[in-house]
This record gives sequence, structure tokens and C-alpha cells, in this order.
Amino acid sequence: MSTSRPSEQPSATPSKRARIRGVMAPVLTPFRADLSPDGPRLARHCRWLLSQGCAGLAVFGTTSEANSLSVEERESLLEHLVEDGIDPATLLPGTGCCAISDTVRLTRAAVRAGCAGVLMLPPFYYKGVSDQGLFRAFAEVIERVGDARLRVYLYHIPPVAQVGFSGNLIGRVLAAYPRAIAGMKDSSGDWSNT
Amino acid sequence: MSTSRPSEQPSATPSKRARIRGVMAPVLTPFRADLSPDGPRLARHCRWLLSQGCAGLAVFGTTSEANSLSVEERESLLEHLVEDGIDPATLLPGTGCCAISDTVRLTRAAVRAGCAGVLMLPPFYYKGVSDQGLFRAFAEVIERVGDARLRVYLYHIPPVAQVGFSGNLIGRVLAAYPRAIAGMKDSSGDWSNT
Repeated sequence: MSTSRPSEQPSATPSKRARIRGVMAPVLTPFRADLSPDGPRLARHCRWLLSQGCAGLAVFGTTSEANSLSVEERESLLEHLVEDGIDPATLLPGTGCCAISDTVRLTRAAVRAGCAGVLMLPPFYYKGVSDQGLFRAFAEVIERVGDARLRVYLYHIPPVAQVGFSGNLIGRVLAAYPRAIAGMKDSSGDWSNT
Repeated sequence: MSTSRPSEQPSATPSKRARIRGVMAPVLTPFRADLSPDGPRLARHCRWLLSQGCAGLAVFGTTSEANSLSVEERESLLEHLVEDGIDPATLLPGTGCCAISDTVRLTRAAVRAGCAGVLMLPPFYYKGVSDQGLFRAFAEVIERVGDARLRVYLYHIPPVAQVGFSGNLIGRVLAAYPRAIAGMKDSSGDWSNT
């Protein structure tokens, strides 16, 4: 793990952006009969959600079946959305994979496309990972992406991912990366946790 | 899902192979300090395991941290092993991913490289999937790979993957693909299940 923190260093270009606010819809992914994802239909669906007053579009989340898509399929869908005219400032794509290299690749693509932020699952294959292990995984991704524009929303969904965020872990990543960590999605289904 | 079964059709070339027998070692993956996997060291470790009497090498399993590697990293490691002189007839790489497209890609690569078989996890992000859903996922992979040389070992490891194989599911895939389904690894840790 690198010890430098490029994403937290003062940037020549201002990195302040309006925080995304309002209703963020989990966006379904339309599939064709051959199980390939349908980009044009996804773009139409996104346009409709925005027309209904959604401020943000959580594409490639659990509802979107994103983990049933390859990294290439997700990259290509994101490119399609932006080319099709969906404002990237409304997009909050899910980018958290089991492999750090995949999470970095998808997160970089999202930052470069100008997305409002990314919704990031912890690596979810191995269970019972320590907070220290999860902290290092998030630190590694943030360092490798190394972009002051990065805004990470931690994605807590233990009923599906099994691996979640403790208060201790949230505190640690927030203290280490106060600018990059922008928020959290709590899908624990537990109001006392929320 | 295609209804044809190319992998089950009589082939012009004989598809009978000696079933792999003996001790199959779960093979550790060596990583460099930058977290990239170290192909040459993996090949040396494989050679050592074979010299100690292992008949088969279960590379890219849970012990191998394979799900912390991208598809490209796993493809590249497999290529390296074969180029480095490891007999592919000793290899049983793990190829089961969350995305069917990734599982197909890795499985094709293993079959083309001449591997003894593949160890296949079910798609493991979504939990509580029905046997029918899991059956269709396996059927889709087998159909798409469409190669009479394919030998699938079902990988049952509910303590980690959470998604496992019921007796009903095993019976269904075996009945539908008696030649492609070659065996099973039971890592349930439950002798009564075994």
C-alpha cells in the first residue's frame, strides 16, 4: 500500500463540487434475451427517471444486477449513458468488486466520465475480514485512483454482500480520506443501524 | 438460454480423458509487494507441489485468493503456468465468477489450454437464489463454452460463497450434462453432507 495520499493533496484545480442531493433511484438494468445488457434501453430508462424528479441515478447497484455483469460490460454501459446524453453529474455508479484491480478500473472510469460519485461495496467474497483488512482495501483503491475528484459512497448491504461496515471502519476511512469519502448507502434494513 | 447442447453432442475427436486422480492441492498465489500476482513464483510453487506427489493443482480457488484477482490476472497467470512448462493435464483452475460472461471467459481459456477440468463456484453475490436459477446459470455457462472437452467440478463452499449446491441441484445439472459434470469439491466442512 502506498503511503502517499494523492487524492487528499491540495489540487491546482478546484475539487469542490455540489454534493448530490435529492432522491437517488436504484436503476434497473435491462437485459436482452441473450442476457447481454441493453445500453440504449438503459439510457431511455435513466432519462425517464430524471424526468420524474430523480436527482441521482444509482446505476450498477444490487437492484441493477451489476455483479452479474463483467467489468467490460459495466464500463461499456457507462460510456453509452454518457454518450447518449445522460448528465454524468447525476450518476452514482456502483464500482465495488471482489478484486481491487477491478474496483480501481471501474472507479477510474467513473471519475474520468465526470460522475457525481461512486457507490462502493467492500470486497465481498471472503467473509469475516477484519476492519484493518477492509480499511486497507479501501485505502488501496483511493490511493490508486489518486484523483481529487473522487467521491466515494460506502455501500453497506450486509444481507447480500455479507461483508459490511462497522462504525469503527467508517470512522477510520473518513479520518484518513475526509474529502474522498462523501457518504454512505445503508441497505442493512435495520433502522437502529441507520 | 440456448436449447442446444453442443457440449453433450458426439464429437469427431474422442473426448474421453483419464479422470484426474490422487491428491489435488489448493495452490497458494504468491503476490508481489504491489499486490500483483507473481507468475514465475507460482510456477515454481506448482512444480514443487508436483514433485511432492500431488496429482492435481487446484489453482485459483479460495485458498489462492482468486476472487481478489481480475479475470485478466487469472487468464494471464494460467497462460504463464502453461508456458512455463506446467502440464495443463494437472491443472484444475477455479473459474466461477459472479458474472456468467466472466465464468465463460475463464472456463473457455482453461479448456483451450488443455486443463484437466475447472472448479466452478456458483454466482455468489446474490443470496437465496433458487435451484432453478442456479441450474440455469450452470447450463448457460456449459452451453456457451460448448466444448466436449469441458469437465466441470462443482465447487460447494457455503461458509465463504454462501451460495451452495443442494442435492436437487446437483442431480439436475448431472442429469442434463452427464459428460460435462465430472465431480465436486465439498468444502462445506460438514461430514454428513459429504
